Amino acid sequence: MPTLAELNAASASAFTDLLDGVYEHSRWIAARTWAARPFATLAALKAALVQTVRQASRDEQLGLIRAHPELAGKAAVAGQLTAESTDEQSRAGLSHCTPDEFARINALNAEYTARFGWPFILAVRGPRGAGLSRAQIIATLERRTDNPPDFEFAEALRQIHRIAELRLNDKFGFVPEQGNRVWDWCEHLATHSEPAWKERGELTTTYLTDAHRAAAAEIAATMRECGFDTVDIDAVGNVVGVYPGSDPAAPRLLTGSHYDTVRNAGKYDGRIGHFIPMACVRAMHRAGRRLPFGLEVVAFAEEEGQRYKATFLGSGALTGAFNPAWLDQQDRDGISMRDAMRHAGLPADLPAIAALRRDAARYLGFVEVHIEQGPVLGALDLPLGIVTSINASVRCVGEIIGMASHAGTTPMNARRDAACAAAELALFLERRAAADGDSVGTVGLLEVPGGSINVVPGRCRFSLDIRAPNNAQRDAVLADTRTELAAICARRKLRFTLEQTMREQAATSDPALQQHWERSVAALGLPLHHLPSGAGHDAMMLHTVMPQAMLFVRGENAGISHNPLESSTADDLDLACAAFQHLLDTLAAS
Amino acid sequence: MPTLAELNAASASAFTDLLDGVYEHSRWIAARTWAARPFATLAALKAALVQTVRQASRDEQLGLIRAHPELAGKAAVAGQLTAESTDEQSRAGLSHCTPDEFARINALNAEYTARFGWPFILAVRGPRGAGLSRAQIIATLERRTDNPPDFEFAEALRQIHRIAELRLNDKFGFVPEQGNRVWDWCEHLATHSEPAWKERGELTTTYLTDAHRAAAAEIAATMRECGFDTVDIDAVGNVVGVYPGSDPAAPRLLTGSHYDTVRNAGKYDGRIGHFIPMACVRAMHRAGRRLPFGLEVVAFAEEEGQRYKATFLGSGALTGAFNPAWLDQQDRDGISMRDAMRHAGLPADLPAIAALRRDAARYLGFVEVHIEQGPVLGALDLPLGIVTSINASVRCVGEIIGMASHAGTTPMNARRDAACAAAELALFLERRAAADGDSVGTVGLLEVPGGSINVVPGRCRFSLDIRAPNNAQRDAVLADTRTELAAICARRKLRFTLEQTMREQAATSDPALQQHWERSVAALGLPLHHLPSGAGHDAMMLHTVMPQAMLFVRGENAGISHNPLESSTADDLDLACAAFQHLLDTLAAS
Repeated sequence: MPTLAELNAASASAFTDLLDGVYEHSRWIAARTWAARPFATLAALKAALVQTVRQASRDEQLGLIRAHPELAGKAAVAGQLTAESTDEQSRAGLSHCTPDEFARINALNAEYTARFGWPFILAVRGPRGAGLSRAQIIATLERRTDNPPDFEFAEALRQIHRIAELRLNDKFGFVPEQGNRVWDWCEHLATHSEPAWKERGELTTTYLTDAHRAAAAEIAATMRECGFDTVDIDAVGNVVGVYPGSDPAAPRLLTGSHYDTVRNAGKYDGRIGHFIPMACVRAMHRAGRRLPFGLEVVAFAEEEGQRYKATFLGSGALTGAFNPAWLDQQDRDGISMRDAMRHAGLPADLPAIAALRRDAARYLGFVEVHIEQGPVLGALDLPLGIVTSINASVRCVGEIIGMASHAGTTPMNARRDAACAAAELALFLERRAAADGDSVGTVGLLEVPGGSINVVPGRCRFSLDIRAPNNAQRDAVLADTRTELAAICARRKLRFTLEQTMREQAATSDPALQQHWERSVAALGLPLHHLPSGAGHDAMMLHTVMPQAMLFVRGENAGISHNPLESSTADDLDLACAAFQHLLDTLAAS
Repeated sequence: MPTLAELNAASASAFTDLLDGVYEHSRWIAARTWAARPFATLAALKAALVQTVRQASRDEQLGLIRAHPELAGKAAVAGQLTAESTDEQSRAGLSHCTPDEFARINALNAEYTARFGWPFILAVRGPRGAGLSRAQIIATLERRTDNPPDFEFAEALRQIHRIAELRLNDKFGFVPEQGNRVWDWCEHLATHSEPAWKERGELTTTYLTDAHRAAAAEIAATMRECGFDTVDIDAVGNVVGVYPGSDPAAPRLLTGSHYDTVRNAGKYDGRIGHFIPMACVRAMHRAGRRLPFGLEVVAFAEEEGQRYKATFLGSGALTGAFNPAWLDQQDRDGISMRDAMRHAGLPADLPAIAALRRDAARYLGFVEVHIEQGPVLGALDLPLGIVTSINASVRCVGEIIGMASHAGTTPMNARRDAACAAAELALFLERRAAADGDSVGTVGLLEVPGGSINVVPGRCRFSLDIRAPNNAQRDAVLADTRTELAAICARRKLRFTLEQTMREQAATSDPALQQHWERSVAALGLPLHHLPSGAGHDAMMLHTVMPQAMLFVRGENAGISHNPLESSTADDLDLACAAFQHLLDTLAAS
């Protein structure tokens, strides 16, 4: 088994030989990467190999893809696979397909290859490094055959890099132990799902349901097992673990994220934000190590606003943002939040909730690790990203009112077509946001209510969702969009309504804390990439009272989130654990 | 009581005096119209006065509008109205408002005036010349307050012209007797409505329902009363009246339209197409007059395709287009067309239906009078229009498939937004159709299925409805739209589906028959205006076997149709009767 030191010291040809088999039949990748030595970490080596492929021509990339065998294909049957492929396909049980499964995979392979012109490639050892089931493989093959070709081309390369990552781990004897641990915790926590969803194998854990309480109990138990000195469930259901520092008077570092979920959720959204710090505490505790400052990890009970319209309830309770009126809100079944709290054994008592408010002077700040929930890091093949700001956002719903008329008998110059006006608006917002740096603008709702093929639309409903790195940019995009809407309607002689339904301020990362994240990522040998957070996070709430900075972990499957396809890998989670430990270490040193 | 001859012979000031009070406090209109003498008909005088107002400046038009009193306003209460206004408001019972009605009208008047800057004007004597009810007046005031200002400005002028028309009728002792008759027939026929709709005061008469059969019986009885020699209900439910000519061997003229309706329909769509010829037959019969050729008037049983998907069934039966498979079609209640026919006393027998096919050699051709169902004639203040062609049409439904993603975290350059693509398509079709003469193109259905404010649309459904004066133009617009759709999707990396659901060939008017209509309209002293029909009509079916040409009658309320607001006036219907009689006379002479 080679070491990184041997690799760094190797000649070009020895280097290429050492990495033979990492990228299937494609020694040119290792050969071209040799010049980038030395590699401080295995992660740095992986990143350099990825970079070589990114810089190759499209024909070379296509050649790399086509160098891979079909899954359970003729080469496998004929015993013509590389040793690595044989091992991987056999771990996934592909050598034990039933005749039906074999026929299905072959038919899907043929359809896929006919559509794209290259073989279907999947890291069959999966995100945790264990073999995917044959059913999972077939489902993925079915799903990915629907992808647009350019998207699937990129996905094939991502799978190849993942295969290479697992082969490199084997080659260098590396096991992402912390990542596996966090992965397993996420997996087990996801077994607590509300009955109707659990039946379908889906994850839904909304505020103070039985599944939610079971999840809280499990997090608390895991915290105790990690070695936190105190573990409590507070008056709103937050699970709070404290790992005191060597100086009890020193300000603590606050971290965490939420454990509630949306309906039919992914397993990583929120949850890795407490599990990653917990893995670090577990390691420090086992090493008998204390930081100079205390670490307070909070698994927030509520962030998603699913059961009650009370988004960010968990983190809001720490900043005094709990709205007393929420206690009287009812869920779909008519159960008030007050009753739900009592049922969960919480006091449902306003003074007790108010007492959760943290004194910012007693904290160094708040850091939060979160899955990206977007495609940026995946598209760049980067496992971690530095969050510069949680974007300011505003949402509106509106309606354009024209005049419905006969599609055959109303001349083009006599129309008051509400849908064409909405079309102009959607394209304006798209252009305006694209011209505004990191801002985004979306018309997500668009509908001609009660429309007919043969009727000129008299009404069109739409929504606006605008997010920008700072409040001023957000406000300018909205103002321009509203001005354009008015101009469109004036020109087309239409009326409109526009109602604002949500508005959140930007939360710019604290420069000092952000710099700690940057140092941690750089220390892992990874390229730095800065990006804003387009989604809201608990850090937004803490931002109102203390400095904060977030770290993003790449999401698989183009960053899809709020969906069972949301995923991460044990390797990425392991890097996030390492980055978090680095952050603790540099904070301790400073 | 003055005569038209006296008016034509009058000096400018005498002319203006004679027409005093026709346009409220606005003698300039008569004064400027004097130069246009002589007027062959009262209709020509009305048209000339309208033309004067159309040629006036916007300020003069606004002055004309503001010269009118508020309905039931302070001037009425103080007895300061013109004699004409006092008479009209009193006929509408506005002098007998309850205190609540008075308060409601005053509040609405105030709201209307505040919105538009001029008083609400309504021809309270209504389309039949009788007074509108106070409830109708209040409902109209409410509805029109929602209009866009430029639209309402034009509507106010249209109401003023209608008021002037009624005042001129009084001044010259003119009663539109044939128009009143057709109006009354339409009104009474509309009492036959299906029970659920009738309860709500709405008109729905779909194929072979009890209401439909009662309507057929009433049309047949009216035909007999008019003096048709033979009246039959044929094997598909068409009501056929024959008024033979003096030469039994001469080819007949075929005319008519449909008596079935859409759901919650207007009272004029289709029905005036048989009632107007019937009124002419009634007059000829009473005068003991025969044409040299026979006149065959058919009230078609089915055109709208509401109960069964068998559009143009009635007229199609005359051209051999009855589809035998239709007999097995079921309505919403599971009743087959065969059973519905038997229940209606029809033979439900294919040979009997096939026997309805007409031998084109035995006909001069087919003419059809129809309400415009569009805004063109109303916008031009013309009661009648010459149809040049029933437009070719094509309908498609489609879907653009992109990729749903998080509206906050997906950068603008990483989106596959199906709604923005559909927006581009809608605007392309709008531009392309507008640049194509009389063609029209509509995206009537537009929807992001299951869309959310915070999700980039992954799918967008849409429809296309394209109509053009000839098949080649229609096909070119569709081909260009499809090419653009493919280009949009290629550029945005999306997929799409596009399925054609309907395609109808253009039916160009027969030049000789069209010329007869032109001569008839010109003989009434009315300006000629040519327009295509954007909607399909029974003439489309007859077009496949014989020459055809249509005449359009202006629709009130911007030409709205398939709606209870669809309306005509007794005066316009009277002109249509006169035009039809002229057509018969010129055909007889030729």
